[in-house]
Amino acid sequence: MCSPDMEKIKNYLHQHRGRFVRELCEYLRFPSVSADARYRRGLGACAKWLTTHSRKIGLNTELYRTNGNPVVLACTPRRARNQKPHYLVYGHYDVQPPEPLELWKTPPFQPRIVGHSLFARGASDNKGQHFAHLKAVEAYLRTRTELPCDLTFVIEGEEEVGSPSLAAFLYRHRARLRCDGVVISDTTLYGLQYPTLSYGLRGICDFEITLHGPNRDLHSGTFGGAVKNPAMALCQMLAQMRDEHGRITIPGFYDDVRALSPFERSALALHPFDTDDYKKSIGVSELFGEVGFTPVEQRSARPTLEINGLTSGHQGEGGKTIIPSWARAKVTMRLVPHQTPEKILALTVAHLKKICLPTVRMKIATAAGSDPYWVSPESTNVQAALDALRDAFGCEPLLAREGGSIPIVDEFKQILKADSLLLGLALPDDNAHSPNEKFNLEVFSKGMLMSACLWPRLSQFRK
Amino acid sequence: MCSPDMEKIKNYLHQHRGRFVRELCEYLRFPSVSADARYRRGLGACAKWLTTHSRKIGLNTELYRTNGNPVVLACTPRRARNQKPHYLVYGHYDVQPPEPLELWKTPPFQPRIVGHSLFARGASDNKGQHFAHLKAVEAYLRTRTELPCDLTFVIEGEEEVGSPSLAAFLYRHRARLRCDGVVISDTTLYGLQYPTLSYGLRGICDFEITLHGPNRDLHSGTFGGAVKNPAMALCQMLAQMRDEHGRITIPGFYDDVRALSPFERSALALHPFDTDDYKKSIGVSELFGEVGFTPVEQRSARPTLEINGLTSGHQGEGGKTIIPSWARAKVTMRLVPHQTPEKILALTVAHLKKICLPTVRMKIATAAGSDPYWVSPESTNVQAALDALRDAFGCEPLLAREGGSIPIVDEFKQILKADSLLLGLALPDDNAHSPNEKFNLEVFSKGMLMSACLWPRLSQFRK
Repeated sequence: MCSPDMEKIKNYLHQHRGRFVRELCEYLRFPSVSADARYRRGLGACAKWLTTHSRKIGLNTELYRTNGNPVVLACTPRRARNQKPHYLVYGHYDVQPPEPLELWKTPPFQPRIVGHSLFARGASDNKGQHFAHLKAVEAYLRTRTELPCDLTFVIEGEEEVGSPSLAAFLYRHRARLRCDGVVISDTTLYGLQYPTLSYGLRGICDFEITLHGPNRDLHSGTFGGAVKNPAMALCQMLAQMRDEHGRITIPGFYDDVRALSPFERSALALHPFDTDDYKKSIGVSELFGEVGFTPVEQRSARPTLEINGLTSGHQGEGGKTIIPSWARAKVTMRLVPHQTPEKILALTVAHLKKICLPTVRMKIATAAGSDPYWVSPESTNVQAALDALRDAFGCEPLLAREGGSIPIVDEFKQILKADSLLLGLALPDDNAHSPNEKFNLEVFSKGMLMSACLWPRLSQFRK
Repeated sequence: MCSPDMEKIKNYLHQHRGRFVRELCEYLRFPSVSADARYRRGLGACAKWLTTHSRKIGLNTELYRTNGNPVVLACTPRRARNQKPHYLVYGHYDVQPPEPLELWKTPPFQPRIVGHSLFARGASDNKGQHFAHLKAVEAYLRTRTELPCDLTFVIEGEEEVGSPSLAAFLYRHRARLRCDGVVISDTTLYGLQYPTLSYGLRGICDFEITLHGPNRDLHSGTFGGAVKNPAMALCQMLAQMRDEHGRITIPGFYDDVRALSPFERSALALHPFDTDDYKKSIGVSELFGEVGFTPVEQRSARPTLEINGLTSGHQGEGGKTIIPSWARAKVTMRLVPHQTPEKILALTVAHLKKICLPTVRMKIATAAGSDPYWVSPESTNVQAALDALRDAFGCEPLLAREGGSIPIVDEFKQILKADSLLLGLALPDDNAHSPNEKFNLEVFSKGMLMSACLWPRLSQFRK
């Protein structure tokens, strides 16, 4: 896409790049940690700075109170009887706690540039990523280039603590937030040569199973042999939930799983995934997953069941000769379309009840997390976004599915009926949530360009 | 056995019973807790009191230093060219910590008599039990009745902390401790109508298995599906170690197990074991054990494998979406003759290595505890002891096997080549190791009588 308008914008982005980086550093100086009350002041100051900055760009900006941290809402100016499409851009100004501080090479809220890397807490997750979108809009507004669509930035301050206020906010403002799609840059791309669009997310649900045996820890000598050990019963129940082919054995578990299309499988096969590097990076000598699927498919496009924790009996050093009174496991299941947490949990509970031995008493607590998400990679919005990635990065983008769950995507879908386009600008080695978080400034430049190209690409289909 | 000598002794025991109880109360006033350094003074004073008391009875008594707490050694006077058989009586003057103090109805070291129960810490475990033997010997000595054997009391002060100094003591004094048997009253009888001789103990060994998966806890969304979860691997390995018939599946595990003889099975069948009461007392609705054996056999005469603790990943409240980096189990196995801890551990490790998946790394730590113990219930010593129980209690005694392990029995066997006769005087509701420990004074009387009858019964076979 090389219209004269786009040339103007590209030039603007190029000319002002140095200032953009300085502004991003300003933004990163705020310790806007949402999980720790000690940072409350830094969080409030950060939201105010972002509001002021968005207004300076030319966006109509309001800072909205919620039950938690405020949401910054910033809109492009609109004319009456507007017929343009409308897109939301989601981001979050809150960041993960910086601890452990001693592992940072320089202080987390004193941004430092080394080569193409800008080090600071929140640089990649998520300030740098949504700042790229803000700067692209600035380019449109300052060069007086007409945007082919209306844009509303929704930038919240509670993402790192589970976005507890977002759903209510979206619901309250659902009329003015009605849109043709949501753009979110909060996922990963493999590298500068691998711009990536994520078109699916796994859903999540979890259960906690507690097996109660004797009414107290029993002496394993005096009682051992005549009483069922609840830790053994738990092992026996959990062991049979995944077979040697990596399949989950809960009856009906796979009934609603949408098969991967040949198009998807070939798209996922293009990922630059190196099994040996992967094994080395996580320190295992062999991978293990569902037979018949590649590791990329296993960890993103297939459901799974993982034990997150086991607790029973003696935990400390040395021995204690007991039959424990109880044993507990915490388990999460990752779901893919069209599984639902509710149905999967119902199947799971029914199965556990069936396989539970009469020699122990079982208690199950369940929690439905979020639905899996999937938008057709062959849809016009996705195709338009892929074009924008091609424009900006100058190479063929990858289609990906995320193994994790982003509950807000589910909320945009449920409340606003809007699909999300996940256009991640984080590199795998950006250390999100870890010490020495960084953001790649080349990706930042490509990201601004991608955002600038995205709006005409998306809007052409709505005209 | 109603010789004129025995009548004299019976009368003495009867006449002085009130004083014996007062002396036992004196003995119980010493807070001789071995596990807690704050009680060191009480422990030393207790050992001195016991030494003085034994001398007063007429025993040649010495207080021997060890690396830990002293051992009281008290012998009946011997003549030169002595041809009498020699028996040891083992006991321990140290007691369990009394905590939690708030659960005691009266202070643990202020003995209190209610009906036939003498409440105090150590009343049953073990001061009252070995005091009965001391008083029986006093009866012989004070009535100038010739003992048909020599006796040596070995009363240590570290039983409740695992008897760390006893083996060295026995080895050092092995010449003068050479004997024809060891009498130990430190086990349980079902009730006054069920005097009990325990002719077997289970051995014990344990292992700790740790499975290492990824080099850190991994995000269960990003990684879940392509990596073996070590908690699941642990469950799968442990689950298959005991089958649905309660059998341990380690190849060769049962090879050395001595089958229960018809004599033993019919003896064990006489136990007043009520399955419903048992289930109620431990709070389970169904028992579980090795098919083909009664609960009494399962918990005492058959080997077992019990998980004592499971630890992996998230332990606290709420959820944490991880694949844990490692998972650990602590396991004890109880052994029966002629299994040995060394061989069973070797078989276990070989089996674990065989079933361990290549997708995890395994570390195993093992510890051999003690050998199982068994003396033929048809042997002359056991038959003599059963006669003494008949004499004293006036009813048919039970033969039992203990499910637990008493390492000192193994040490007497290994170091002195001596078999032990376990003639327990503790009732199941004596609250050993618990608040409100008590000793039944009727059992005390019967115990003194049993001890008095025991020496002629035992010695007749050695004459």
